[in-house]
Amino acid sequence: MIDKLISKIKKTQAPIVVGLDPMLKFIPEQIQKKAFEEYGETLQGAGEAIWQYNKEIIDAIYDVVPAVKPQIAMYEQFGLEGVKVFQKTVDYCKSRDLVVIGDIKRGDIGSTSEAYAIGHLGKVQVGSQEYYGFNEDFATINPYMGTDAVAPFVKVCREEKKGLFILAKTSNPSSGEFQDRLIDGRPLYEWVGEKVAQWGADFVGESGYSYVGAVVGATYPEQGMILREIMPKSYILVPGYGAQGAKGADLVHFFNEDGLGAVVNSSRGIIAAWQQEKYKAFGPERFAEASRQAVLDMRTDIAQALESR
Amino acid sequence: MIDKLISKIKKTQAPIVVGLDPMLKFIPEQIQKKAFEEYGETLQGAGEAIWQYNKEIIDAIYDVVPAVKPQIAMYEQFGLEGVKVFQKTVDYCKSRDLVVIGDIKRGDIGSTSEAYAIGHLGKVQVGSQEYYGFNEDFATINPYMGTDAVAPFVKVCREEKKGLFILAKTSNPSSGEFQDRLIDGRPLYEWVGEKVAQWGADFVGESGYSYVGAVVGATYPEQGMILREIMPKSYILVPGYGAQGAKGADLVHFFNEDGLGAVVNSSRGIIAAWQQEKYKAFGPERFAEASRQAVLDMRTDIAQALESR
Repeated sequence: MIDKLISKIKKTQAPIVVGLDPMLKFIPEQIQKKAFEEYGETLQGAGEAIWQYNKEIIDAIYDVVPAVKPQIAMYEQFGLEGVKVFQKTVDYCKSRDLVVIGDIKRGDIGSTSEAYAIGHLGKVQVGSQEYYGFNEDFATINPYMGTDAVAPFVKVCREEKKGLFILAKTSNPSSGEFQDRLIDGRPLYEWVGEKVAQWGADFVGESGYSYVGAVVGATYPEQGMILREIMPKSYILVPGYGAQGAKGADLVHFFNEDGLGAVVNSSRGIIAAWQQEKYKAFGPERFAEASRQAVLDMRTDIAQALESR
Repeated sequence: MIDKLISKIKKTQAPIVVGLDPMLKFIPEQIQKKAFEEYGETLQGAGEAIWQYNKEIIDAIYDVVPAVKPQIAMYEQFGLEGVKVFQKTVDYCKSRDLVVIGDIKRGDIGSTSEAYAIGHLGKVQVGSQEYYGFNEDFATINPYMGTDAVAPFVKVCREEKKGLFILAKTSNPSSGEFQDRLIDGRPLYEWVGEKVAQWGADFVGESGYSYVGAVVGATYPEQGMILREIMPKSYILVPGYGAQGAKGADLVHFFNEDGLGAVVNSSRGIIAAWQQEKYKAFGPERFAEASRQAVLDMRTDIAQALESR
């Protein structure tokens, strides 16, 4: 799957992931109105609104980006009805040949991580049958519990040829509270980076990149440069561009010399582009076209930053 | 909710949480057979088997324990059908007046943690209406991303009078890989413990205990003793008893002098008791009675350990 991701990045010339993180406040009036007319102002109505909104965006961007990253929290907030839409969204993205990164940030003791890995990336045994659960292509993982919490995910990924992005240095303001603390003179995120490199060292695709990558926030470019060196074979999933404040120039250190090695996420900067002054002309009816334009502009921003480095 | 938990612990004399972490291999033949006859060897069939199994156990233990802890991974492994059973299980436990600790170990950047908090503990706004999602009473949280990842959970808990257990020192063998690393001479889990105490300092119930507790594995009694001192007002959720190897004597340091301050989880030690040599006489038909007996034995084990400390 890492090779598919890279081949699609090359084809689209877009090291971009669209974060499908729907909030009702992003969804144009006409979609909400129609869903609520059909299902009432209910969780099911909210689910329908999110689904129609996602679908229109996916249809507008599937040919210009390699991958999407649905953030499962934004679906779980609507309970079971939301999780149903998460599943529908994953399935629909895959039918459009998009690589799907499940942003689930799971991680637990061994047997529990195994259950998460099975549910999100692998197959579960029921009697004599086997079934996929949510069936994403990649998942994000939290490393706080150490190797035995990560190992079951790696095991399932080996079986399924799927991949992981493990939190190293996250994009949020207080990420340094624990992640930056010095241990034997080096911050915790570097120790995590070392482990990421180890966990993925012998699980490498034809591209030369490992199936085990890391999450490093665009909001911390200097730390990104260091982690880039520590984990030369690991793809870096870079959140924090756009709405969280990072710009194209902040991204260059996350990439290797070959122009690969990083894939940059933008969520509301793309899916809620129609609400920005810059894309106002599209109006609420053409919100998905605004999203497509925001992708193209982001692609240009990153390309220019990489050219001028 | 912390006061309700404590009052129920006092009433049942059982500082015990039953981990509702179903695996098909724990479920007696007769239940699986019936579910598969009705729904086939499908995800729905697996869901039905888990639901009937959970329900029978809950009916057998609800009056002798204060709380249950469904581990959501064990439901997510069956995809959407599993998550449906998670919801049904939470609802049913609440109808039996059990305190429900959602073992979800979530944690993300602020806006995303807010969505998780809303979905699992709070209410989501849909048009002019508000709805609960999964509606657990407590949730477990991963602290790796720092204060702004935890704050939205605390905010929702204040509104709903619900509580949290934040991972400090986990029960798994490799938990020390990062959690034990020394920062300014003290292990990371102590720094997390200090933060747990801060996050919950001004959010305290009538019992004197905070709504913000911590997870500390029974498998690490010495670390438990230190964390007990660092977080005097925090309840400690203690996994690792039974199947993971910890015994009653390992638990004493997690409790305060008042006999409160800790609640000990056992999952397969209780729900799969019928498969143990010790409870073999119950047989597969009376598996739920075996679970009840395992709870009573665990209560005695803990009481004896506390008496002889």
